Amino acid sequence: MNPVRTIYFDNASTTRPDPRVRDAMLPFLGEEYGNPSSHYYPLGQRASRAVEQARADVAALIGASPEEIIFTSGGTEANNLAIKGLLAEAPRGKDHVVTSNIEHYSVLNALRALSLRGFSVTYLPVDDGGLVDPARLEAAVTERTALIAIMQANGEIGVVQDLPALAAVAARRGIPFFSDGVASVGTVPVDVGALGVSALSLAAHQFYGPKGAGALYLRAGTKLGRLFDGGLQERGYRCGTENVPGIVGLGAAASIAREEIPAWNRRLAPLRERLRRGLGERIDFMNFTGHPERRLPGHLSFWIEYVEGESLLLWLATNGVCAASGSACSSNIKGEDEDDLSSSHVLTAIGVPPEICHGSICFSLGKESTAEEVDFVVGVMPGIVRRLWEMSPLYAERLKGAPPAGS
Amino acid sequence: MNPVRTIYFDNASTTRPDPRVRDAMLPFLGEEYGNPSSHYYPLGQRASRAVEQARADVAALIGASPEEIIFTSGGTEANNLAIKGLLAEAPRGKDHVVTSNIEHYSVLNALRALSLRGFSVTYLPVDDGGLVDPARLEAAVTERTALIAIMQANGEIGVVQDLPALAAVAARRGIPFFSDGVASVGTVPVDVGALGVSALSLAAHQFYGPKGAGALYLRAGTKLGRLFDGGLQERGYRCGTENVPGIVGLGAAASIAREEIPAWNRRLAPLRERLRRGLGERIDFMNFTGHPERRLPGHLSFWIEYVEGESLLLWLATNGVCAASGSACSSNIKGEDEDDLSSSHVLTAIGVPPEICHGSICFSLGKESTAEEVDFVVGVMPGIVRRLWEMSPLYAERLKGAPPAGS
Repeated sequence: MNPVRTIYFDNASTTRPDPRVRDAMLPFLGEEYGNPSSHYYPLGQRASRAVEQARADVAALIGASPEEIIFTSGGTEANNLAIKGLLAEAPRGKDHVVTSNIEHYSVLNALRALSLRGFSVTYLPVDDGGLVDPARLEAAVTERTALIAIMQANGEIGVVQDLPALAAVAARRGIPFFSDGVASVGTVPVDVGALGVSALSLAAHQFYGPKGAGALYLRAGTKLGRLFDGGLQERGYRCGTENVPGIVGLGAAASIAREEIPAWNRRLAPLRERLRRGLGERIDFMNFTGHPERRLPGHLSFWIEYVEGESLLLWLATNGVCAASGSACSSNIKGEDEDDLSSSHVLTAIGVPPEICHGSICFSLGKESTAEEVDFVVGVMPGIVRRLWEMSPLYAERLKGAPPAGS
Repeated sequence: MNPVRTIYFDNASTTRPDPRVRDAMLPFLGEEYGNPSSHYYPLGQRASRAVEQARADVAALIGASPEEIIFTSGGTEANNLAIKGLLAEAPRGKDHVVTSNIEHYSVLNALRALSLRGFSVTYLPVDDGGLVDPARLEAAVTERTALIAIMQANGEIGVVQDLPALAAVAARRGIPFFSDGVASVGTVPVDVGALGVSALSLAAHQFYGPKGAGALYLRAGTKLGRLFDGGLQERGYRCGTENVPGIVGLGAAASIAREEIPAWNRRLAPLRERLRRGLGERIDFMNFTGHPERRLPGHLSFWIEYVEGESLLLWLATNGVCAASGSACSSNIKGEDEDDLSSSHVLTAIGVPPEICHGSICFSLGKESTAEEVDFVVGVMPGIVRRLWEMSPLYAERLKGAPPAGS
């Protein structure tokens, strides 16, 4: 049907489940259909054991104990559970939250909901690489601070925060520190002890596991309220019949990631650099975003002056290349300014000028990505960009001044 | 390994996914891994279309419009979303809820959480068959009533409420009516228009679909708050990357159920009666629970005097028979009285005397159940019961009075 080969450079949106993950799940979509709460007969007992094995595997991926893992339906639920659950247990008089201004919408909007219930929120700025300064965090904390919530990695610009330095501020002040790990866990090595976080979210579909399965790490002894009321599954933190196939898939993905992340990243970082160099050399007015070194290994993000991000994505799709707009997520959100489709809160936070940036692009490579794919994209991009420039009245005006080199 | 053939009579706990459901899901655990929000390229567009097809299929099962379906991670989430979401939008001055005292824990505990925030809750009694009287509902409604929440069917005693009569009371008073349909949707024909409900929950794994996927029907024009904050998936009612394989599985299960429920139930009701008659004729001190006619077609529930439900379940398991204790769910819950393991709030509600009822049993047949399986259970039960009676000091005492016939 489709004569064009597909090149999937959108692993930050979702990943293809590893065949081993699917194979691990299959029995639980067939003959192993027991309910883990049915502990009177072997079919139910085996389902329960499978869930506990997955819990151990997820714990091992991040250096936690199995009893510190709460399974959820994904990253958004885990982020909401962490923020609302931790603040539900905040001591009296603690009604302040510190976060960054480049968090995911599930964090920002959960905090916005809580701000309507009386919590105040400080949004820390980031530098032009997207990093939060620990000194600024320290300065923002008050006697009333109940929670610090700063993501580990940003899926739009790829930056990875210095969590140990940030969490140390929280530890010194005795404040719970939650980190949205959805973009990082399973992609870079993570050890919750070394990071010093009280809670960390993750989602299976970000690292070759299934959609619909995620988890919240909650450090032993940390108090947490719940989003759902019902039975006692997940020790009461998250009731409802367990998504056994999804949880088993998450566990399998965690096992694979734990074993293979180093090998993946030895390949991915050079591939990403090959892409960066190739594009940077061939295309003018190219602005790479996010810190150049402290970033997700397969992640490259940029914007090109006078180029509409959405148009570029459509032309890439025509050439079989799947990629994301940095503003895709935000264009899906009705913010206060509904006209604000071309930029995103993250680009604004790192100081990208909205008058010349009309949307950014994110290429996120995955473990199956190849040098041939990178070279294809490097080869096809300059022509697309030239065509888009030729259609741009702003670019035509600019040309009257200083002509760009083109490709 | 296991020399004993397994007879699965616990379809009220969960069902085995239909092979057609699994086949429908498989592509979405493999090559069709796109994120439905990735609308720039075909892989994402196909994922989005698959979700919308499933939405149409779920809507068709219950006589709703596709835009009235909100996908969730399951029944517990749908029940929590309905109750907390509808009450979040309750008009000022409306702070009262009417429910029944045989609801599922996800409903009862969600209401308990809300009662801590100022809502008052009236728990309607049921008759000895488990039915709620519409006249009692009418009498319980006040000017302050914000919500009526009454389940369609109870998984423990099988009773199916007269929802049209109950919902009519709500309609006359202009009060939203939510029904927990987890035990009924996909098992009996359901038409939301004929029922007259404002909202109805369902869970795929209750009707040969996967665990981890459910939905909330919300009548067009009904206001609903949300449990999660984040992106705009599910029109903002339920954000987070969609569980595409789970949703596709739910859609496939809905299509199959819509087509096949009549044929399933033509077989199941007589099989259930064969089981009831067989057991009733061979075992004394047998007490069937729940209304004899207004009940789920494959569902038989009972308790036997002087027999511990849990012991009976273990002996059944030894014989390869999977069944549930009516009190399994409640024994998993730490109520206010932690000693209360042998009875359940449902049995108490229908007037079962705790001093002679030591746990009830629920046999729930499914579409693969056979007459041979029924006959095996009818054959093996009397011997098990006799053995348990012989171990019971209470039974020995009773024998001194009026000897039972035994088997």
